[in-house]
Amino acid sequence: MNILLVYAHPEAQSLNGSLKSFAVKHLEAAGHQVQVSDLYAMKWKAALDGDDRTDRQAEARFNPVWDSQQAFAQGTQSKDIALEQEKLRWADTVILQFPLWWFSMPAILKGWVERVYAYGFAYGVGEHSNTHWGDRYGEGSLAGKRAMLLVTAGGWESHYSPRGINGPIDDILFPIHHGILYYPGFEVLPPFVAYRTDRFDAAHFPALCAELAHRLDTLHNTAPLPFRKQNFGDYEIPQLTLREDIAPGRSGFAIHQK
Amino acid sequence: MNILLVYAHPEAQSLNGSLKSFAVKHLEAAGHQVQVSDLYAMKWKAALDGDDRTDRQAEARFNPVWDSQQAFAQGTQSKDIALEQEKLRWADTVILQFPLWWFSMPAILKGWVERVYAYGFAYGVGEHSNTHWGDRYGEGSLAGKRAMLLVTAGGWESHYSPRGINGPIDDILFPIHHGILYYPGFEVLPPFVAYRTDRFDAAHFPALCAELAHRLDTLHNTAPLPFRKQNFGDYEIPQLTLREDIAPGRSGFAIHQK
Repeated sequence: MNILLVYAHPEAQSLNGSLKSFAVKHLEAAGHQVQVSDLYAMKWKAALDGDDRTDRQAEARFNPVWDSQQAFAQGTQSKDIALEQEKLRWADTVILQFPLWWFSMPAILKGWVERVYAYGFAYGVGEHSNTHWGDRYGEGSLAGKRAMLLVTAGGWESHYSPRGINGPIDDILFPIHHGILYYPGFEVLPPFVAYRTDRFDAAHFPALCAELAHRLDTLHNTAPLPFRKQNFGDYEIPQLTLREDIAPGRSGFAIHQK
Repeated sequence: MNILLVYAHPEAQSLNGSLKSFAVKHLEAAGHQVQVSDLYAMKWKAALDGDDRTDRQAEARFNPVWDSQQAFAQGTQSKDIALEQEKLRWADTVILQFPLWWFSMPAILKGWVERVYAYGFAYGVGEHSNTHWGDRYGEGSLAGKRAMLLVTAGGWESHYSPRGINGPIDDILFPIHHGILYYPGFEVLPPFVAYRTDRFDAAHFPALCAELAHRLDTLHNTAPLPFRKQNFGDYEIPQLTLREDIAPGRSGFAIHQK
């Protein structure tokens, strides 16, 4: 299949760089087509602003939503944005690879999401009515594709465990899994997370690669996270709260999975 | 008191721009000293990389943690980073103002955190032992200061309610409140969040300003979020899991508040 790896680490000679090279070789050896968006190497522009629309009047007030909509609809997006959208259309599976910095993705990758996820492409898609609140959360332009996070964390696994001080890793990643990947339609696979990478011992690299290889070999048949679709009866519309009889009395991120 | 407003929106003529101007005027009228870091206007460099250290050997392998430590210790940080650290030292209270984009802060502000939060300044501070896991989560260089988020969200308040499809706003903001602000020592005030701002009606602006004014007038005596300190007995060290007899059987972000 076609696999897009979006990669965000500033140093090629790093654990992340080594994992990226391993992943690309492993996937290609298995017969997949692979494209890599190496954001640091591409000097990706992180900040979303008025320059992202090529036909904007200099004196006009910039509205991130409206200008994105206009530029996407009229084909006047900045070229780097359009190229990344084309890669997303091409891909069957997308992997976002990054070190966890301050409990989220690096700024350069966040800026990739903000700029590439145009209105009309990743949001603002489909009918908005009292029975259908846009094609999102289970529907959308990227439906039918799969996505997975490949994350390194400096801290220990126990620090990210259900009672760990950083918060559970599943909750830390929920805004990305659910809010960035599931939102425009991706099926989201469980993440691959390597812990304690600040003191990573090179002797453990082969074992880590073996674990990763297993996940890469099973991208097509790994069960996705069972998020609930928005427009198929589980949620009240337009409030978008979970129906009272589903997970009654509970709240939090976990209720949005079956 | 001294107040630093770190502001991340690309358009001055926006709701965010108007709220920022209102906040600055209101705080100054109350006798406070205010500095604003307007990240878009400053053309803040979002991506953390080897250029953040002025004395790095070009051919050397870049290690985000190690190079940050060296540059901070030796006074060879990029000047823009050192200036922001100086503002943080000066401030009694810090406000981070931003639109919620894809369920987190804009890339340009995330990049401010990544670059300004140097090793030795915001992390890697204090003794690491089996009884004290660094000065963090309740201790650290920024202890004694207060911080508050000022956030605008396009979606409805119900979408961010305890059972709302986006997840509860308190959980969405936890990685920022706890992981970015409480971590280096800030006392974190409850956030000020304005919802449904994509269709904001200018007629509601005075009421929104009145709400914000109340929060600005009570910055000094608003009770902070009651996060648990790391090194004072609530957590096992070095696992950093919450002691079994505290919030027994529970897990998730909420257990880290008293």
